Amino acid sequence: MPSYTPPQQDLEFLLFDLFEVDKQWQKLPALADFTPDLVSAVIAEGGKLARDVMAPINRTGDEEGVTWSEAGVTTPKGFKDAFTAFGEGGWIGLAGNPEFGGQGMPKMMSCAMEEMFWAANPSLYLYATLTTGASICIDSHGTQEQKATYLPKLYSGEWTGVMALTEGHAGTDLGIMRTKAEPQANGSYRITGTKIFITGGDNDLAENIVHLVLAKLPDAPAGSRGISLFIVPKFKLDADGNPGEANGVTCGSVEHKMGIHGSATCVMNYDGAEGYLVGEENRGLAGMFTMMNFERLSVGIQGLGANVFSYQNSVAYAQDRLQGRSPSGPKNESGPADAIVEHPDVRRMLLTQRVFAEGGRAFALFVGMQLDKAKHGGDAGADRLSQLLTPIAKAFLTDRGFECSVLGQQVFGGHGFVREWGMEQMVRDTRIAQLYEGTNGVQAMDFIGRKVLQDGGSTLTGLIEQMSASDVADQHSDALAGALSLLSRVTDDLVKRAGVDADLPGAVAVDYLDLAGYVIYGWLWARMAKVGDDDKARLAEFYFARILPRIHGLEQSIAADASAVMNVSFSA
Amino acid sequence: MPSYTPPQQDLEFLLFDLFEVDKQWQKLPALADFTPDLVSAVIAEGGKLARDVMAPINRTGDEEGVTWSEAGVTTPKGFKDAFTAFGEGGWIGLAGNPEFGGQGMPKMMSCAMEEMFWAANPSLYLYATLTTGASICIDSHGTQEQKATYLPKLYSGEWTGVMALTEGHAGTDLGIMRTKAEPQANGSYRITGTKIFITGGDNDLAENIVHLVLAKLPDAPAGSRGISLFIVPKFKLDADGNPGEANGVTCGSVEHKMGIHGSATCVMNYDGAEGYLVGEENRGLAGMFTMMNFERLSVGIQGLGANVFSYQNSVAYAQDRLQGRSPSGPKNESGPADAIVEHPDVRRMLLTQRVFAEGGRAFALFVGMQLDKAKHGGDAGADRLSQLLTPIAKAFLTDRGFECSVLGQQVFGGHGFVREWGMEQMVRDTRIAQLYEGTNGVQAMDFIGRKVLQDGGSTLTGLIEQMSASDVADQHSDALAGALSLLSRVTDDLVKRAGVDADLPGAVAVDYLDLAGYVIYGWLWARMAKVGDDDKARLAEFYFARILPRIHGLEQSIAADASAVMNVSFSA
Repeated sequence: MPSYTPPQQDLEFLLFDLFEVDKQWQKLPALADFTPDLVSAVIAEGGKLARDVMAPINRTGDEEGVTWSEAGVTTPKGFKDAFTAFGEGGWIGLAGNPEFGGQGMPKMMSCAMEEMFWAANPSLYLYATLTTGASICIDSHGTQEQKATYLPKLYSGEWTGVMALTEGHAGTDLGIMRTKAEPQANGSYRITGTKIFITGGDNDLAENIVHLVLAKLPDAPAGSRGISLFIVPKFKLDADGNPGEANGVTCGSVEHKMGIHGSATCVMNYDGAEGYLVGEENRGLAGMFTMMNFERLSVGIQGLGANVFSYQNSVAYAQDRLQGRSPSGPKNESGPADAIVEHPDVRRMLLTQRVFAEGGRAFALFVGMQLDKAKHGGDAGADRLSQLLTPIAKAFLTDRGFECSVLGQQVFGGHGFVREWGMEQMVRDTRIAQLYEGTNGVQAMDFIGRKVLQDGGSTLTGLIEQMSASDVADQHSDALAGALSLLSRVTDDLVKRAGVDADLPGAVAVDYLDLAGYVIYGWLWARMAKVGDDDKARLAEFYFARILPRIHGLEQSIAADASAVMNVSFSA
Repeated sequence: MPSYTPPQQDLEFLLFDLFEVDKQWQKLPALADFTPDLVSAVIAEGGKLARDVMAPINRTGDEEGVTWSEAGVTTPKGFKDAFTAFGEGGWIGLAGNPEFGGQGMPKMMSCAMEEMFWAANPSLYLYATLTTGASICIDSHGTQEQKATYLPKLYSGEWTGVMALTEGHAGTDLGIMRTKAEPQANGSYRITGTKIFITGGDNDLAENIVHLVLAKLPDAPAGSRGISLFIVPKFKLDADGNPGEANGVTCGSVEHKMGIHGSATCVMNYDGAEGYLVGEENRGLAGMFTMMNFERLSVGIQGLGANVFSYQNSVAYAQDRLQGRSPSGPKNESGPADAIVEHPDVRRMLLTQRVFAEGGRAFALFVGMQLDKAKHGGDAGADRLSQLLTPIAKAFLTDRGFECSVLGQQVFGGHGFVREWGMEQMVRDTRIAQLYEGTNGVQAMDFIGRKVLQDGGSTLTGLIEQMSASDVADQHSDALAGALSLLSRVTDDLVKRAGVDADLPGAVAVDYLDLAGYVIYGWLWARMAKVGDDDKARLAEFYFARILPRIHGLEQSIAADASAVMNVSFSA
């Protein structure tokens, strides 16, 4: 059986030593109360929940899965109790609005907690992260009354939240959706349509489910400028604000999927359901993007959690499994064979996972730091930086998370393919993270198009300058400078070439996002080697020697013209 | 539902135009009768079997899986009839010994057929490929009587063949196995022990199952020089050579796995079963390696089949699915959106799959050609070359096959995660190919150690010279020359460095095997661009522009010292 150990020590290293949050937060009044002791205690508490409550029902949740009946969705054994504990512990509203029962903690703390929850039980945590996302959306775009009605119930986990965007024919392209919203005399709207891929669309974890539904008004403009956002509760609220009459929201079926079997992926039917406008008519996409940006970072952290889980379990196996002899001579002479951790190629697989895990953790916290500075310090530069980094966080963390889940499984040899070891489940569960909340290709196009080319590369250039100016370990400063100048050169070149070739950004988007990711991790490793202990220094050496070189292949691939992909004909 | 189309045209292009087999085979008397017409007819017939008989029960086989009871293993609905048709069609003994009912066809034809069978239904084909492997082992190492007894029955599929190596504590390290073989007065041996991961160890497809079991004699030397090989039939043969009395061979359970659910992965108990020595005592590993080398190439081709399946289904989806608009302007103005095949990033995913599919097909046939020259022409150079290329075929084809299954799934967006589309099944089914028959890390160590360093790089250097001297498309000759000289430089350097650092080969083995794979594919693409049509030329352009650059990252990674992986401590 796999196990999970919360990375308390490394989180404290990153927060206190690398990012020096105690100094940072002193400058932000809303966060000034979060002392190191409090931070450590919260991490310990959340870690305990992940390890002792969530992780033990991860494998059983996969085996059992969700079940559907006309009456609704049933989640696996233990999920309801765990979710209740989760809500009661205040974890859903960890960074939520204190005015309505949220805990108002820094986003960096949320990032730290999310990693542990995703590592322990992705299917279960999905119900919670969507509830948090719904609360953020309502907090940002809802009326005071909507906030007062919904936020306390979402924060406490008494109700869950759901995001309803996709339709059978409309995924990435939401502009062609068909779900309609008809204004009613009482100010509400009648919502009618079918949505698919609705995570937690129905469930038995809570007494009500708050759907945030995108739909089109009868006279809406075509395309994505004609989409409005509505709150559609599963049960309408009675005069006391409690769930009452059913609201025409039903789950038609659940998908049979590769993984996240404990998470209900629902086909949802809205049959003239009563909905309440959030924000302005036809401006629903903006509201949904607030939620989506939260979810994109969180899903990125799903990849990180998988990476950490996979590393922890494969390093334990590699220390235990005896097979063959080390090429430099026996290391366990009295035993029948050496532990496979002695084999250089096994070490390569373990170290690749480890540098992505610890590098990814630093990266996620760095993004969280920008969000804190933007939200609590009104820092416009940090806000732009967080927007630049969000698609990288979503795509790079999940692509590396998947790569590392596969590597962790590989360390187990044939046993990695067997369900009881739990490694193959994490591969299956992590695969979805590259697909949902906008595929990783869509993230890459967002990154290169909206985040880099749209401002002529200036936000990214600012980040490159910040990285260049920072204090890193001597032994990596030249290599880092080389990598930064490579990224800078490729970016300048792309800004020029994209102007004359509309197909170019899409053709190289994924390679370019990867390039940026590897370089930023290089900077973080050079910083960690400076600030951390010998262990960190050796890990940084591995990163620079064995991982960062990937940028040279990417640079050459990005140098290719779009014609390399556009000129081929795909006639059947 | 996914579908499968046999690649008749491309196979004919490769066999006749690229490799000019009609000329080659004229020089090899045993193959001189295989005319182009016959070859095309065989491909068409095998393709029909793959498409019409095997592919339609691939998804249902995954859903149903195998079931175990005390009485034995039951395979999914339709598997028995399909396997019977497979055996009766002569496909198991396609390249088998004509003296005992085999068809004596070239290995290249076998490679071509295997690709189609793997693409259509990996779980089902596993039963057959192991039967072929067992027949090859008996043909190479058995007595005349053993051949006469077993080969006709294996070739016809009346009996299946099984390879029993692994034990719970002994996988890669077979030297520490415990299964014992006690000599009996009648010249047979009593085999006692438990083996795991035995593919098809029990099944209901055939009337008998021929186990090739590795075991140790009571006085055997320690380690891998003390292993002997035995034929252990499930049912002992009666005086007429028909299955009679049960032989103490029982299946204790089947594994629950990530994929290949239709293939029975058995725990096998041999309780004093009667076994018959194959070859000499204590020389069993040599016999098993005959089988293993066949299986390694075949499993490589499993990766290729997955790649082809994934490409075919994702390109069809991409032409059908409407979403968004092409960045260079609408391509389907009258429709609500453009087909996603118009998006550059989707084209990148499709083309990556396609160049690996067609490049991999050429590579597999090239390896097959060496085996034909060695077996039928006594060509010692071709024999060495086939040994050099086998670990690349196993690891590179399956790693690329997995990469491409994941890419094909990615083209489907969220739908790729849903079981009914069939894309996620191929990801799960292909994952095992990187693990069994020696993990891909083990292949890489075999390649760098036994195949390259052991002869000071001379076989590989010979191949590099052959590639350098060949007639390629002008537009790629410089890039190819650069890649070949890079591979040559890295190899020379490794030969030197490995002499002073025993850990180095293992530390860089996987990157080095990948490097060799990308360069060889580059040569094949440069050749195909020379010989093929415009389509091939454009695909070669994509390969050189977007894929081959990966070698630059690999070169730098291989340049790192072993200390980068050896210096880190993994204390828990």
